[in-house]
Amino acid sequence: MKPLIVLNFKTYAESTGANAVKLATIARKVATDSGVTIIVVPQTADIFQVSHQVELPVYAQHVDGIKFGGHTGHILAEALAEAGARGTLINHSERRLQLAEVDAANEAAKRAKLETIVCTNNIATTKAAASLRPDYVAIEPPELIGSGIPVSKADPAVVSGAVDAAAGVKVLCGAGISKGGDVKAALELGADGVLLASGVTKATDPEAALRGLVAFA
Amino acid sequence: MKPLIVLNFKTYAESTGANAVKLATIARKVATDSGVTIIVVPQTADIFQVSHQVELPVYAQHVDGIKFGGHTGHILAEALAEAGARGTLINHSERRLQLAEVDAANEAAKRAKLETIVCTNNIATTKAAASLRPDYVAIEPPELIGSGIPVSKADPAVVSGAVDAAAGVKVLCGAGISKGGDVKAALELGADGVLLASGVTKATDPEAALRGLVAFA
Amino acid sequence: MKPLIVLNFKTYAESTGANAVKLATIARKVATDSGVTIIVVPQTADIFQVSHQVELPVYAQHVDGIKFGGHTGHILAEALAEAGARGTLINHSERRLQLAEVDAANEAAKRAKLETIVCTNNIATTKAAASLRPDYVAIEPPELIGSGIPVSKADPAVVSGAVDAAAGVKVLCGAGISKGGDVKAALELGADGVLLASGVTKATDPEAALRGLVAFA
Amino acid sequence: MKPLIVLNFKTYAESTGANAVKLATIARKVATDSGVTIIVVPQTADIFQVSHQVELPVYAQHVDGIKFGGHTGHILAEALAEAGARGTLINHSERRLQLAEVDAANEAAKRAKLETIVCTNNIATTKAAASLRPDYVAIEPPELIGSGIPVSKADPAVVSGAVDAAAGVKVLCGAGISKGGDVKAALELGADGVLLASGVTKATDPEAALRGLVAFA
Repeated sequence: MKPLIVLNFKTYAESTGANAVKLATIARKVATDSGVTIIVVPQTADIFQVSHQVELPVYAQHVDGIKFGGHTGHILAEALAEAGARGTLINHSERRLQLAEVDAANEAAKRAKLETIVCTNNIATTKAAASLRPDYVAIEPPELIGSGIPVSKADPAVVSGAVDAAAGVKVLCGAGISKGGDVKAALELGADGVLLASGVTKATDPEAALRGLVAFA
Repeated sequence: MKPLIVLNFKTYAESTGANAVKLATIARKVATDSGVTIIVVPQTADIFQVSHQVELPVYAQHVDGIKFGGHTGHILAEALAEAGARGTLINHSERRLQLAEVDAANEAAKRAKLETIVCTNNIATTKAAASLRPDYVAIEPPELIGSGIPVSKADPAVVSGAVDAAAGVKVLCGAGISKGGDVKAALELGADGVLLASGVTKATDPEAALRGLVAFA
Repeated sequence: MKPLIVLNFKTYAESTGANAVKLATIARKVATDSGVTIIVVPQTADIFQVSHQVELPVYAQHVDGIKFGGHTGHILAEALAEAGARGTLINHSERRLQLAEVDAANEAAKRAKLETIVCTNNIATTKAAASLRPDYVAIEPPELIGSGIPVSKADPAVVSGAVDAAAGVKVLCGAGISKGGDVKAALELGADGVLLASGVTKATDPEAALRGLVAFA
Repeated sequence: MKPLIVLNFKTYAESTGANAVKLATIARKVATDSGVTIIVVPQTADIFQVSHQVELPVYAQHVDGIKFGGHTGHILAEALAEAGARGTLINHSERRLQLAEVDAANEAAKRAKLETIVCTNNIATTKAAASLRPDYVAIEPPELIGSGIPVSKADPAVVSGAVDAAAGVKVLCGAGISKGGDVKAALELGADGVLLASGVTKATDPEAALRGLVAFA
């Protein structure tokens, strides 16, 4: 099975504006060469540019659980879709939502035909999030984020436990992923792919980092 | 004196995506014909498109008080600027910020050379916001928002009080503004312009509504 | 079966401070006379006083998902328990929590031996909340809160749907409950009891209102 | 001049429940012996108990900007006052509020005759907070909190700058305060006192720590 690689651009200088287009172009090349699906997740302000210049699925980093109306400063699913997004993260650890908002955001995304990845922090919240039937849940144990220690090795039980808890919803895992072996371990535990950021965006050579990630596939 | 008209697109269907470009194009026409400065404030996802297709100052609806880094789902001042924004609202009534965040967002915007309009709800918070030295404060008494009753008529003392409290920072007023007379009254009370949304975006004929607003100027 | 009546004191004048003690005393009398369990839910500042002066189970209105430490202004489960609380609401519609916080608050409460009622707004979030295994979920459709129309009559399918979704976790229902017939209807739909506030606290005669509620039992 | 010592109990095990009463009793002894005013700031659940058992001014750690009504899980100024609080912190770094909420909380507190200390993070927000006319502002530079380095020594200019910016509102300083010399330095810079927590609550001998703090006075 080919893994799904979801590359979160966060708000790094290396992946903002023109750099977002550059990084997505690199990702496009690696995706084409390897046959692995890579999703890029730029900032909201960069979605239009990236999706119109690079042929690769683009996800948003966040969507609010709102409808058309008076919601100044919020992120509307329909605006993301029209700007070229194909999906969205929801409830990322850096942008947590209330339980009712996770549900509303997931419904808003579906209404606009956006695919959804709901992020979670442990097995219990993975089960809760999966019960809302998003396309994916992405489990990232907070203690491993930015640790350089891949969750698939540091705590394999949390990945396989999340796969069980998700009851059929596909599972991605994040936190500490940077090498092909980490991806391989994740797949062997039942995950469908990985969600990562700094391992690629902050790498000295992002293309080499991405090629390493998909090498084993 | 010519007033400043700040047109908030919010997340209305009439001002999202392609409709945002259309509405900005109308605003551009009215601005050119009248010589009045009109600033358009589309959603973050629409800034790139609007600023690249329409020659008019574009502001963002919100900016977070962050720097480059790991802030998934947040709005970075540098990304707004690179997408074509010239300024940003901060602390809109539909997107309130903590006091320390208002300060940090104002500083982040300045760092990225974005002009700032900090929104407030009464004279006391106008004084507090003005002490942070944004380019503008925009006072919108919450009880008048969406009331159809212009603040410049319903409560003139709150506008002139805000102008005093702002101690030299320019003041816009909002809530219930829809006609040229409302703008005129605001200027006579010491305001530099108005912040409005539905009076134009939801009007049957937005162009006529905008022309009415600037007619007296 | 006897229903469980959970009486939320909110922050009403009629149920703050000395009035909280008075209302709890009335509830105690009705509970004793009827044999129905009534739980009172005063504000945090009133828990000590109510629990030490009235012999009735006292729940808190909110608990944070924190441990002992530096959390100024937050509500610690251990402090609630030591003040006399036997349980707590979590995620009430007027005090929503992030998904990860609902989980953390539920765990914090269990650690301090507090029973938990997680509030939800629809069937999907009821399923999600129930997967965290609180003692109860309490479903309150937001469109019915304060409507005077009991959820058990306005939308019986949402109550029976919540009972199914809760997969064995006991279900309370709220929103619009004020009469014994509302409670009876709720139990017939599979609920174990009701969560209510203004129907009793704001009643001209709270004792009569409470007696009416438990009359059918 | 005698300094004001404000002792924040936070949610430490050493200052929760019965321990809150014990620590307040120690503070009462030191205050009586030294003639220095010490204000204790226990958790909301402990205010009733502490204020009824110890003769010392008690402040709350947080108050919401609400009135009597439907605000489940929020902290009502009137409930704090009736439980025995004489004042309250507002906008502590661990419980930040939106700008409009800081104003509303300050007004709510005044309405209930509670004194107010609004916490801030830098000179700009101190000026903003002081413009709301609370009884005190307390500046705590975030980079020094928990550092063990007293703000009065690490960054004296931030204290004297805050005193200037406060324009007549009394200033407390916090972050890193643990010794009498830190208090003395704060007073010499124009502050009226200090806000501290772990330097006393987590000390091996809290009484000795408190005596050290007031020694120079």
